[in-house]
Amino acid sequence: MPTTNEKIALLRSAMKAAGANACLIPSSDPHISEYLPAHWATRRYFSGFTGSVGNLVVTETASSLWVDGRYFVQAARQLEGSEIVLQKMGVEGVPTLIEYLTDALGEGQVLAVDGMVTAASTWRQLAGALAKKGASLKSVDLVQDNWPDRPAVPATPAWLLDDTYAGRTAAEKLADLRAALAEKGASAMVVCRLDSVAWLLNLRADDLDNTPFALAYCFVTPDDAVLFIDASRLPAEAAAALERQGVRVTDYGHLLGFLTGYHHDRTVLVDMAGTNEAIRAALAANPVFTLVEGEDPIQALKGVKNPVEIENLKKAHVKDGVAMVKFQIWLEEQLAAGAAVTEVDVDEKLQALRAAQPLNIGVSFDTIAAWGPNAAMMHYHATPEACSTLAPRGFLLVDCGGQYLDGTTDITRTYALGELTDNERTWYTYVLKSHIDLAKLQFLSGCTGGNLDVIARAPVWAHGIDYRCGTGHGVGFVGGVHEGPQNLRINNQVVFKPGMTITDEPGIYEEGEVGIRIENELLCCERMKNQYGQFLGFEPITYCPIDLTPVRPELLDAEEKEWLNGYHQMVRELLTPHLTAPEAAWLAEKTKALA
Amino acid sequence: MPTTNEKIALLRSAMKAAGANACLIPSSDPHISEYLPAHWATRRYFSGFTGSVGNLVVTETASSLWVDGRYFVQAARQLEGSEIVLQKMGVEGVPTLIEYLTDALGEGQVLAVDGMVTAASTWRQLAGALAKKGASLKSVDLVQDNWPDRPAVPATPAWLLDDTYAGRTAAEKLADLRAALAEKGASAMVVCRLDSVAWLLNLRADDLDNTPFALAYCFVTPDDAVLFIDASRLPAEAAAALERQGVRVTDYGHLLGFLTGYHHDRTVLVDMAGTNEAIRAALAANPVFTLVEGEDPIQALKGVKNPVEIENLKKAHVKDGVAMVKFQIWLEEQLAAGAAVTEVDVDEKLQALRAAQPLNIGVSFDTIAAWGPNAAMMHYHATPEACSTLAPRGFLLVDCGGQYLDGTTDITRTYALGELTDNERTWYTYVLKSHIDLAKLQFLSGCTGGNLDVIARAPVWAHGIDYRCGTGHGVGFVGGVHEGPQNLRINNQVVFKPGMTITDEPGIYEEGEVGIRIENELLCCERMKNQYGQFLGFEPITYCPIDLTPVRPELLDAEEKEWLNGYHQMVRELLTPHLTAPEAAWLAEKTKALA
Repeated sequence: MPTTNEKIALLRSAMKAAGANACLIPSSDPHISEYLPAHWATRRYFSGFTGSVGNLVVTETASSLWVDGRYFVQAARQLEGSEIVLQKMGVEGVPTLIEYLTDALGEGQVLAVDGMVTAASTWRQLAGALAKKGASLKSVDLVQDNWPDRPAVPATPAWLLDDTYAGRTAAEKLADLRAALAEKGASAMVVCRLDSVAWLLNLRADDLDNTPFALAYCFVTPDDAVLFIDASRLPAEAAAALERQGVRVTDYGHLLGFLTGYHHDRTVLVDMAGTNEAIRAALAANPVFTLVEGEDPIQALKGVKNPVEIENLKKAHVKDGVAMVKFQIWLEEQLAAGAAVTEVDVDEKLQALRAAQPLNIGVSFDTIAAWGPNAAMMHYHATPEACSTLAPRGFLLVDCGGQYLDGTTDITRTYALGELTDNERTWYTYVLKSHIDLAKLQFLSGCTGGNLDVIARAPVWAHGIDYRCGTGHGVGFVGGVHEGPQNLRINNQVVFKPGMTITDEPGIYEEGEVGIRIENELLCCERMKNQYGQFLGFEPITYCPIDLTPVRPELLDAEEKEWLNGYHQMVRELLTPHLTAPEAAWLAEKTKALA
Repeated sequence: MPTTNEKIALLRSAMKAAGANACLIPSSDPHISEYLPAHWATRRYFSGFTGSVGNLVVTETASSLWVDGRYFVQAARQLEGSEIVLQKMGVEGVPTLIEYLTDALGEGQVLAVDGMVTAASTWRQLAGALAKKGASLKSVDLVQDNWPDRPAVPATPAWLLDDTYAGRTAAEKLADLRAALAEKGASAMVVCRLDSVAWLLNLRADDLDNTPFALAYCFVTPDDAVLFIDASRLPAEAAAALERQGVRVTDYGHLLGFLTGYHHDRTVLVDMAGTNEAIRAALAANPVFTLVEGEDPIQALKGVKNPVEIENLKKAHVKDGVAMVKFQIWLEEQLAAGAAVTEVDVDEKLQALRAAQPLNIGVSFDTIAAWGPNAAMMHYHATPEACSTLAPRGFLLVDCGGQYLDGTTDITRTYALGELTDNERTWYTYVLKSHIDLAKLQFLSGCTGGNLDVIARAPVWAHGIDYRCGTGHGVGFVGGVHEGPQNLRINNQVVFKPGMTITDEPGIYEEGEVGIRIENELLCCERMKNQYGQFLGFEPITYCPIDLTPVRPELLDAEEKEWLNGYHQMVRELLTPHLTAPEAAWLAEKTKALA
């Protein structure tokens, strides 16, 4: 395999041949996904950086990679020895991608980007910024010819999620979408995001690692719904079931041709951030289409879980909690016996315990099992080649989740393995305080993630500490472990609604020293309604003890302790029926009330 | 004087004569002010509602007034006996102004609004909404001929705030503005907001009650600055001083003619929310002007106080605190002696005590002195005709402030006058907790008011209580007591910067029962800077004891008590040098640390 610098050199030659002076290799695919099929892991291949998000820019003389705070440590390590300069996003003095490009490119120069894997909004933003310098964008695929042994486009068997899990049929969801489109004055939409396609048609497959999506588009009008998917992978009974729901099927590769040849007048809603530029350009080029911009309505629809999904989700979380309890018991036994346990062993044990649970269909993302300083890398993933052995001191951070037919889970626990420093105990308690302060919050309807995020940050900010990531994110239903539109970041504008789920995962990460994170999923629920309006709150739906051994109780107030004790009581009541007697006794001990 | 219903009938006749089917009487003046000269207190005159904000709509068959949560109680009382329907903004089921108008007006119908007292943004919003129904807007002044004895346009003597108070000269501020305009690609601006004109030219007058602004516009280009003001009111030495700063003076009434006759090509920045529609239309009608929309840069410039202003402001607040201490001592003496003290007495005493302080030039708004249930009206103002006598039980809420040559103040204290109910003690402590939680917050640079507002609300939300107003607002410098751009509301998008001041004034208001508010002004300051970024925090610059007698200490945590005790120590140290020995002894008692 060529070195990173050799790969960059290949991109430079291809740039030159294409008449471009620079190229941008984003982390994206035709569906503007965060987690990518191996076929589209382009930025990973050319840069060597394996994180989920990052943008690579190659100019005639330099190359740079932009990553966010989660990945500063990991990216620095993975770029070592290459020519690529690490650009830490959000750090003072570091240019943004746009600033860098407009600085690097001058009058008449050209940036090569593949419109097929670039969001229309990104394309417009880049084009606008470059135009000010007299530079321009050119859609060209520099990758295909310069990536020997590129993985194939995935084509795993597709299947339909049963209505008993999904709660609503594809026909019902199509009706929801059509109503939402009509409200926005639109009569058609190309559903491009994989999470939207999956939700809309209850369609699933195994095209992405750990995320059961099928590579597909759907074109929806008031009287038609066309699914674009590799037909060979769709079993006849699934195709027939879709047809009964009013969905006809055609080939994945036909979309652009279909749009070009379409001949009914339609007002098409285009979600610029969730549609690739090639689709937008095809729509814009066909005069039968009038384009209106607006958010994909499916995002808001699927962000609120329906009652059947919620009921299922709670069942999935009970099973997930049982697996986590069995894991912790196993871990304690191994360490007590002096066995050498590696981070990879932790990952494998967790996978096996989840796989043993009913309806499990895999994990929801690559397990983060990180001992000691490794946990300072928020998205660390141990491999057999690079993996620590646990020592009986400090923390083991485990962030993991499962895919079940009745739901997707995401949980983090940080376990004390033995002696802790004062800092470790204090920081652990700050993180717990942050976690609880958000979880117990009661708030008036109308608040966004941007309004609530600070509630979790305040306890760590008070000590001059921050975590360089959101406080939490939405989770799909038998879907992506990161799904919107809701999240907990200071700039989020999505209003919380009952039925939304969100992770609550503050943390403290000190490079080279320690990483601590405590994560539950929370369900947004109605609380009291009075003259002030409807109050909302959160119900934790992750059921697993939180390690109390590191806690400094004097740093928690009475309400925080009350929340913690109530949470542990609920965990005990829900999990005990699914445990053996010794396991139940262990759990009773772990969930004892904090005085 | 005609009754409210008779005034509405006059408006209906005028509407008809103007060919309109409805009219909107906003709370505004040509400068889009919140607090209005009596000449423009149009909505007040026609509706009878005396609050600072509200919109009156009259159709052929109905009339309605929209007010926000601060005024629900007061407006309901003041509309009694009239035909006007109270529309409580933000309450479920209550139509917004726009919803109401688009419902009320159909194809070909006309809404009359005076473009001279309507923000260009409001005009555009109304026009857009009505256009969907085939209805339209017409700029017409229905007021002038239907308001006998209308107060004259104010023309008080204008004066210049000395540089030793303002910290920067008009010439320096003009340079700041020109640089900000250039950054936005503009070369000219009509400064329309009175607070912006006041700040830009250090110009003051007494045109508005309690707010030392002069009715004036300023037109700024790279090489010219024209002040539009009634010349007869500007002393020759002030005009000469302005001329030395590069400002020429012409008549207030000349602005629209000046814009119409202007003949240099200019790109004009138009702050749609801070410019009246008549000005925007005049600019748009003259082809030499290219309009670009953007926020008035003065708002952001003046939102951050300069070091001289901050130094002065602290001096003003010490004097203000001395007046408040003397007031509280007087109040206690009166009540102990069994004297009958009315709310108006409180107001008069406070005015006298402030007037006795050096450099005082008046109060910054009408004092709110509200006993018991009166305090549930957030903006209550006692008058000799309607005024309670204090009784030795419950709370007295006093919200007041002063105008000094060295700064503007705004403070609220709620005093226990005797026996309190359990609810009163509990609610007072919740409000104090809310106040402290915001005041002691340390946060990462980048946060907006929308991010931080929830910190103060969380302690009352926890008990199903809300206050129907922002948590706080900016305060001008020898200016308006409500000045932006920063404020603490969930939708505010202005990033906090060191040097900004903000009030911190959570409250609890139970109609017919009680009103509690505790308000300090806070100065945004730098705290630590480390690998996570620049942390910011707040320093209280209001120096006055907070009544501790109602506090239930068990509801405050250790950090909250620590903040309170530290605050009281600072108050004691700063005020004692300015007090007599008995006053100082009194203060020492009132500022004792809470155990």
